[in-house]
Amino acid sequence: MSAPLSGKLIGVGTGPGDPELLTVKAVKALAAADVLAYFAKEGRRGNARGIVDGMLKADLIELPLYYPVTTEIDKEHDDYKSQITGFYDVSAATVAAHLDAGRTVAILSEGDPLFYGSYMHLHVRLAGRFPAEVIPGITAMSGCWSMAGLPIVQGDDVLSVLPGTMAETELLRRLCDTEAAVIMKVGRNLPKIRRALAASGKLAQAVYVERGTMASAAMIPLAEKADDVAPYFSLVLVAGWKGKP
Amino acid sequence: MSAPLSGKLIGVGTGPGDPELLTVKAVKALAAADVLAYFAKEGRRGNARGIVDGMLKADLIELPLYYPVTTEIDKEHDDYKSQITGFYDVSAATVAAHLDAGRTVAILSEGDPLFYGSYMHLHVRLAGRFPAEVIPGITAMSGCWSMAGLPIVQGDDVLSVLPGTMAETELLRRLCDTEAAVIMKVGRNLPKIRRALAASGKLAQAVYVERGTMASAAMIPLAEKADDVAPYFSLVLVAGWKGKP
Ligand SMILES: C[S@@+](CC[C@H](N)C(=O)[O-])C[C@H]1O[C@@H](n2cnc3c(N)ncnc32)[C@H](O)[C@@H]1O
Ligand SMILES: C[S@@+](CC[C@H](N)C(=O)[O-])C[C@H]1O[C@@H](n2cnc3c(N)ncnc32)[C@H](O)[C@@H]1O
Repeated sequence: MSAPLSGKLIGVGTGPGDPELLTVKAVKALAAADVLAYFAKEGRRGNARGIVDGMLKADLIELPLYYPVTTEIDKEHDDYKSQITGFYDVSAATVAAHLDAGRTVAILSEGDPLFYGSYMHLHVRLAGRFPAEVIPGITAMSGCWSMAGLPIVQGDDVLSVLPGTMAETELLRRLCDTEAAVIMKVGRNLPKIRRALAASGKLAQAVYVERGTMASAAMIPLAEKADDVAPYFSLVLVAGWKGKP
Repeated sequence: MSAPLSGKLIGVGTGPGDPELLTVKAVKALAAADVLAYFAKEGRRGNARGIVDGMLKADLIELPLYYPVTTEIDKEHDDYKSQITGFYDVSAATVAAHLDAGRTVAILSEGDPLFYGSYMHLHVRLAGRFPAEVIPGITAMSGCWSMAGLPIVQGDDVLSVLPGTMAETELLRRLCDTEAAVIMKVGRNLPKIRRALAASGKLAQAVYVERGTMASAAMIPLAEKADDVAPYFSLVLVAGWKGKP
């Protein structure tokens, strides 16, 4: 049994961009970790790693986990699925080797680790075998509605978190069936999202936020935004709350 | 014009319970504030104030804002609405007097301030007149799914945040129409929530968490929980993610 001597797995939420939005617990976990792992594209450092840049101790072992290059493959294709599954398996094995050696491994996750974060793929593979802890992070949506000063939900409002990747008719249907909405994964889906919001009668309420809480953050009513491609770090907010006490 | 001399309004998210889940930014804001305001029931201190108990400087002016006693009045009744509106107006005026006097006022909010938080009632009354900033907090739901180690959404999953106060048929309809769900405001609604989850086929997946991240936190599969009244600080999680890469 390696359990008593093994290190601990810690999923660390870094929040959406502003380094001061790390929690006190996350800062302490980084200070205590032996190994710092994070997902990134080959040759890049990744957003989560950039956020914690000023807070790392000198002797920390860095473990970047580079996504396989899959741009040419359809995400629904079996080749993509087996490549990405293989990548998570290998990444988990690499992390497990450090844990087996008694090292505490902090795995960074932009925003909150278990909310659309890649960290979960390592968590499900490792949490049963090693002591594990997840430190929640400020989600991108919380960072964005706070920056905008926009009360998102109140009282008995329903909030729907919708990926901008869904079909236009489905997006429209769901926008009509909720008080408040957050639309993630905007990117190339911006024109579609705008059409669905217009058809639902909610375009005038919608706020577009890019790089929320980062130094380069920007926001604008979606109705005034040019219909071009949005950056990866962008989302749309539709507040449910209005005119309540 | 009082603006150049006025203090700053800061909505401070305290997170769901564990004091280490405050952000670094929130801790700094508390250290810089002149006045600390928070909503509470008469004679109580309130959860948000309890969370920051160990971090307050000696000369901080405390400003508890006590809700009017409205237990006998129906929330949909005009008497309730005018009482609570009047209460928010008076509270905003009290805070405004401190801001006019040049004091920085931090207003505590359990979890995230603009996500079902009372802070928003002061924000909408004051943010136009005074410099204002909202510091996001870890939401109760993030704290709970992190504690449970439960990946809540992944890929193109939809997340629906539903108040447990809604009608059973409506709750059932929405549970059938989403991958993942968080049901807030459980309390007396527990038997109804269980029936709706059972009818939607999602009861086996549902996890009940009370006082998430607090010292007295507890969690249990909802199917195993007794059908009694849940405490105020409780919610139900239904993860959308399963069996993906
Ligand atoms: C894979 S998800 C990660 C979500 C993250 N784990 C969280 O807790 O919010 C990536 C999406 O989050 C949103 N996002 C992340 N950071 C953001 C930011 N700083 N500003 C705006 N949107 C952001 C974008 O919609 C992006 O497509
Ligand atoms: C008025 S809302 C406040 C939500 C808060 N602003 C947030 O960001 O999560 C109160 C509801 O939040 C949930 N809640 C708050 N703190 C909680 C905790 N520590 N554990 C479980 N549920 C909690 C309960 O469902 C409760 O009915």
